[in-house]
This record gives sequence, structure tokens and C-alpha cells, in this order.
Amino acid sequence: MMTMESITETIRGIARRSQQAAASLRGTSGEERKKVLEAFARQIDGDVAAIVAANAQDYSREEAQGMSAGLLDRLKLDANRVASLADAVREVAALPDPVGITTQGSVRPNGLHVRQVTVPMGVVGMVYEARPGVTVDAIALALMSGNAVITRGGSAAALSNAAIVECAWRALAEVGLPKELVANIDEYGREGVTALLEARGLVDLVIPRGGAGLIQTVVDKAKVPVIETGVGNCHVYIDEQADLGDALEIVLNAKTQRVGVCNAAETLLVHQGIASEFLPGVLGKLDEAGIRIHGCQQTKKIAADGDIPCLEATEEDWATEYLSADLAVRVVQDVEEAVRHISQYSSGHTEAICSLNVRALDFFTSSVDAAAIAVNASTRFTDGGQLGLGAEIGISTQKLHARGPMGLSALTTTKWIIAGNGHTRP
Amino acid sequence: MMTMESITETIRGIARRSQQAAASLRGTSGEERKKVLEAFARQIDGDVAAIVAANAQDYSREEAQGMSAGLLDRLKLDANRVASLADAVREVAALPDPVGITTQGSVRPNGLHVRQVTVPMGVVGMVYEARPGVTVDAIALALMSGNAVITRGGSAAALSNAAIVECAWRALAEVGLPKELVANIDEYGREGVTALLEARGLVDLVIPRGGAGLIQTVVDKAKVPVIETGVGNCHVYIDEQADLGDALEIVLNAKTQRVGVCNAAETLLVHQGIASEFLPGVLGKLDEAGIRIHGCQQTKKIAADGDIPCLEATEEDWATEYLSADLAVRVVQDVEEAVRHISQYSSGHTEAICSLNVRALDFFTSSVDAAAIAVNASTRFTDGGQLGLGAEIGISTQKLHARGPMGLSALTTTKWIIAGNGHTRP
Repeated sequence: MMTMESITETIRGIARRSQQAAASLRGTSGEERKKVLEAFARQIDGDVAAIVAANAQDYSREEAQGMSAGLLDRLKLDANRVASLADAVREVAALPDPVGITTQGSVRPNGLHVRQVTVPMGVVGMVYEARPGVTVDAIALALMSGNAVITRGGSAAALSNAAIVECAWRALAEVGLPKELVANIDEYGREGVTALLEARGLVDLVIPRGGAGLIQTVVDKAKVPVIETGVGNCHVYIDEQADLGDALEIVLNAKTQRVGVCNAAETLLVHQGIASEFLPGVLGKLDEAGIRIHGCQQTKKIAADGDIPCLEATEEDWATEYLSADLAVRVVQDVEEAVRHISQYSSGHTEAICSLNVRALDFFTSSVDAAAIAVNASTRFTDGGQLGLGAEIGISTQKLHARGPMGLSALTTTKWIIAGNGHTRP
Repeated sequence: MMTMESITETIRGIARRSQQAAASLRGTSGEERKKVLEAFARQIDGDVAAIVAANAQDYSREEAQGMSAGLLDRLKLDANRVASLADAVREVAALPDPVGITTQGSVRPNGLHVRQVTVPMGVVGMVYEARPGVTVDAIALALMSGNAVITRGGSAAALSNAAIVECAWRALAEVGLPKELVANIDEYGREGVTALLEARGLVDLVIPRGGAGLIQTVVDKAKVPVIETGVGNCHVYIDEQADLGDALEIVLNAKTQRVGVCNAAETLLVHQGIASEFLPGVLGKLDEAGIRIHGCQQTKKIAADGDIPCLEATEEDWATEYLSADLAVRVVQDVEEAVRHISQYSSGHTEAICSLNVRALDFFTSSVDAAAIAVNASTRFTDGGQLGLGAEIGISTQKLHARGPMGLSALTTTKWIIAGNGHTRP
């Protein structure tokens, strides 16, 4: 058993070596980094059996310890899933290089040439739980953007993660880069995470991915910069002047296409003017799809008229990201009340409006403060791939640095180059 | 005497009202926000006597309590300084509107129109000390970028800050906007700052400005997103193949033009190949300018040969941001050793190289990890105005969100607008 003090020292040592290794990627071209990822994909392909075997051990241990079916599904890797992880690495390798882009620049009146260019962040930490696929994504995205990465994927997936990290190490060796570019700290437990979060000056960014509890813990403990991700208490508001056929499809898609994801809808808000016309149909379809309705008084009444089961919604329902086959439903007076409800309960992820009225749309899109506003579209489109960013490392629900799906560019920062010819400041 | 608990409740109440007030700026045009700033400038101009009188009270109290001359100078406002503060507000009003800019967008293959636009951050907190000018800048920059602002300018400048905030309140009333867009929490002391830093979900960003101690405290306590600013342990490296005439001017400018600022040079690194040629002249000039030299062994020897006073540099000298008439000087073997020294001691602000050799320049600019690299130019150019960004709210020395001088755009975030026509995700 290591003491907290010795774990802190160990983690700081790892981070220091990550920082030194990160220097080896500075000045590399996108082509060179692409080669690392291609080697990583080949190593994964060549090591399918070992990865699947390691995962099987993680899986059976966690199954025996009573992990839920949903989590077990995220944990599981079979040969097909491993192959698609390797493909995902190749997709990242095919993305445009995010490093070395001039974001702004000018020749100043005094003749100084100034420009701001994108550069790697340095050392990026990823903290997540029981999702070995995230280990692959994190390594691929970090290396492609020129960063060293420290992963903490949790004890439940420790053997799977270790097998994946081995592939990354072999890939780095193959192209002659230091293996310290990829580090895994699963073996140091929660104390290891704490030490990582306190390693100011050594770790440039930590991204937590997981449930609200994990993210809260990371934010509370972090002394290093953190980007909060993923909690999505997403609303769909159906305006009085909506295309109700489209609205029905959007509600069903946003709630039922995948219930356990952060961009799934959790609350439906319906304008009172169309509630009695719209709700019976949509509640019936949701019920058929196995969704439990938690309704306001008006919703309950409409549901009862159609013999559709409906629980009474409480304050907690409005505030909850279910991540399950549940939906809160509320009738609102108008778009203003919808926006007030959303302002109170939103987690700032994705908020949708169905309306054909320009004034309502303008009011909603300018008033609602969220990473994404879906207009006559499902909340499920808030996704790096869907928005054209390629693979994503998470969906930021904070406002600093990156908001919404984070692609490669979120793992870069900038550097000013101030080029003179003996210039001094008068 | 308020308890910590009641201060926390009070500050959270203020932040909640700031958040509500911030909504009133969403959807305003740049012209409308410009009008607020123009009114603010007029109010300052019209209230010079009251501001100067309030400041005189702050000044004499702090002088009696032994505040240093440098800090007293920063605290002082006379009629001319107040007039130039009003002018600075007008300059911010003349900057391009940072809100509503489309940063990226496309029509997706499925016909979804997606675009990412800049929007105000929401509620911005500024924590600083005894610098009433920062109160004016913070209010102007925050309002122009569509944000509510909460200032904490310290008890030493409390009366000056209060007089300035009064001007902002009258300006807001004049244009019909809520006064809660500007709040000042000086009266709640350090506990007020702590409460502000813990107001997650209410405060979107806190920017500390001040010495290393203040910034460290803020980073340690903050549960809300923070941007570290301003600590500058800046180096100037003179390469073997430098224009030594230019190099002399750059060193003198970087060290002596203003010694108390974050972009002043604190350490001079000189290639061994030109040390005996370059150092006697530069050390002599620095000595004439009243700079105390803290040299390595070789530097001491060269200084002694020219009868120039030179203290022995210790480990602490390399690590210190003097902000005073002191300069550490070290002879290095080559550009690699210069980069290693900088990597060890840099605060990531500005690092300069004087060289005419392309290889040395490339190595230095790609290897040194800092907000700005000055190439054959003084470190003093790392400044919002000098780089063409207009007024700055601080100089970020971290990598997240903003790095280097932060102008208006650093006070914005983005929002994805995902516009469909009944789109659902297959």
C-alpha cells in the first residue's frame, strides 16, 4: 500500500516525464504524427486477441461484482469492437492537422510581424470510467494534436486499458518516439487521480468524462485547468406554431434513439396552445416505445384521457438527467416560460425548439444559454462527427476554451510569434 | 461582522442577479453596447471631482499605512488620469463587436445547417488589488462583450472603485439597462472573494490580476473557471550569431523601459561564444541605468574585469520575477542550454531570442513553451495594444481558452446553432 505522499511523488514523476516527452512532438509535422497513429492502429489490429482476453477478465470480474448491464455493455470489447477502435484511430489520422495554424496576425505600424499560431497543449490528462474505447480515442486525439497523454480509465477496465496502452507504446517505439508520451495511472487508484489533478505546472489540462459525480469530484479537486463535459439535461420545446409531424419525430428521436447518452432529451416542454392536439399522439408513441412519462398536472390530465400511464413530475424530475427511458413533460404558457424553465434547469448542453415562427426561434436561440441550440432538429446532433469536427474527446458544457463537442483543435493552445528586426518599445 | 455563511449567501445572491441581468445583454447589438460605454465615459468625465476626491481618501489612508511608492503610484487618480480612463472606455467602444461572429459552419451532408457563433460569457468576475484603473477597464470590456461583471478591487481602492461603479450604474440607467450588470464586492473582504470563487453555476469566469500570491490564492480556491494572468519571469537569450547592436538595445529596453511590469525581462542568457565581446558593454549600460546585476560565475568575472558591480546569482535569482531594477545574467553553452534554462524557470509569459541564424530561431520558437516568443524584439511587445488586439483585460499565462494578452474576444464563448427541417438522427 503506497502512502498518499508517495503516490503524489510518483504521479508528479510520471507527469514530469510526460512533459519532457511532449517536447519531442513539438516541431513534428502532421505527417509524422499521422504515422504514429497508423502504427497504433496496426498494433491494435495485430493484438486483438490479447485485448479481447484482457477485457474478458475485466468483464467477468465486474459482472460478478454486479456492474449494471448498461455499464457492462460499455466495458465490453469483442473482436469487432476492437477492429472498429483501430478504424477510429485511422479516422483521426485522416483529420486535418490542428497544429501550426495561424489564427490571426498582422504587420504592426512599427513593422513588427506578429502572428498567433496553434501549438499542442502539452500534457493532457483524461479521467473516465470503465470505457476502454475512450482510452483509444484519448491516445489517438492527444498524439495527433502533438500532446502527451495521461489516462486514468478506472479499475473496472484496468486490464483492457493496459493492453491498449501496450499497443500505443509499441507504436511509439516503432516510429522512434518516447513511450512516455502515453502514460496510464490506473494502478494508483483515486489517490492517483487526486495527485494528477493537483499537478499544477506539469499537467496542462484534465478532461473528465463520465457521470455527474465523477465530473463534480474532478472539478472540486482540480488545481490544474479542467474542462467539464457531458452532463446533459436537454429539453425539447414544441412551440404553438410548430410542424407537429416534424415535432413528433424529433421528440421520439431525441428521447428514444439512445437513452443513455448526454444529448438525449430529458424534458419535453409543450406550448399550451397545441398541448391538447399534440400531446395525446406523442405520449402514446413514447409509451409504446417503453418511455415512462413524468408529467405536470395538465400533461397527466391529457394522458389520463388517453389511458396513457403518467407519473406526477416533481421538482426533482425537472432537474434530473435521467439517462434512462424516462421523460419529464410540462405544458408551458409560451416560449418565454419555456426559456425560463430551461434557464432554471438546463445543464448547458443542448436545447431544442420546434417552431416555424421566426420571432420565437430568434428569442429562443438568443436567450437560451447552452453549448448547442437545435432548431427543428433532434438534440442528438450535438456530436463531433455530426457537426463535422471528426472524432470528439468529449462534449464541453462549460464556456471556457471549448464549448460543445471537442475535436482535435480543443487539444491545442496558441503561441504568439513577435518577429522584429531589433525592435524596442518607445 | 457578517459570518462566512451569510457572506456566501449574499455573494450568491449578487451573482444570481448578475446572471439575470446578463440576459438583458443577450441579443443586443454592438451599437447598443457601444452606447452604454459612451454613457459610462461621459459619466466618468462628469464626475472627475468626486472620483479624485474618493481616490484622495484611499491614497492618504494607504500612504499612512505604509503602502510602497510603486503601489501608491498605481492607486493614484488625478484629473488627468481620470480623463484618460474615460478615453480608454471610448477606445473599447470603438473596437469591433466580438459577439455574433460565426467562427465555423457548414451544411452537413444530411442538409443540417450548423454554425458556431460567438456569444457573451455571462458573468465575469475580476479580482485585483489597489488599481482603480482596472475597475474601469473591466467594466468597459465586460459590457462591450455582452457580459455582467463583478469586480473585487480590494479595500485599498474601495472608495475609488465605488465612485467608478456609481458612474457605471448611472450610465446603465441612462440607457435603460439593469444596474445589476455591474456589481462590486469590495465590502465583503476576502471572504467575499472566496464565495465568488465558489459560486459554480453562477459565475462563468474569474480573472485574477495581480502578484503571484493573489493569483495562487485564486487558483487554489476557485471552483469556477479561472484564467491565470500576468506572472512573467521573462528571458532574453543572445545567440552567438546575433546582431549585437540590436541585442544591446533589446536587452536595455526589455529590462529598463519599465521594471515593474510582467513583460519586463528578468534574466539575460548569453551564448558563451560572444559573452566576452557582448557582456562588458551591456553590463556597463545596465549598471548606468541603475540595474543590479546578479550574475553566474562567468558573468561575475567579466563584470569584475570591467569594474562593474555584480552580485552572485543563486538558484532563487533564476526563479524570481523581480519586478524591480534587478537582472539575472547567465552565460550558456548554446541555444539548447538556453532553452533548457528557460524550460526550467519560465512562467510561460514571453521569451525573447536575438539571433540571425534561422536554425537557432526555429529551434527556439518551436521548443520554448510560452504565450509569446519575441524574435529580435523586446519582450515589452507582449501587450494587447502592441499586438493589435486593443485594450486588454490581462495577459494569460495558462493555455486554456486564451493565452497571452486577452482582448474582448477572450470574454466571449461560443454556441452551436444546429438548424434543421425536422431532422432526426438515424
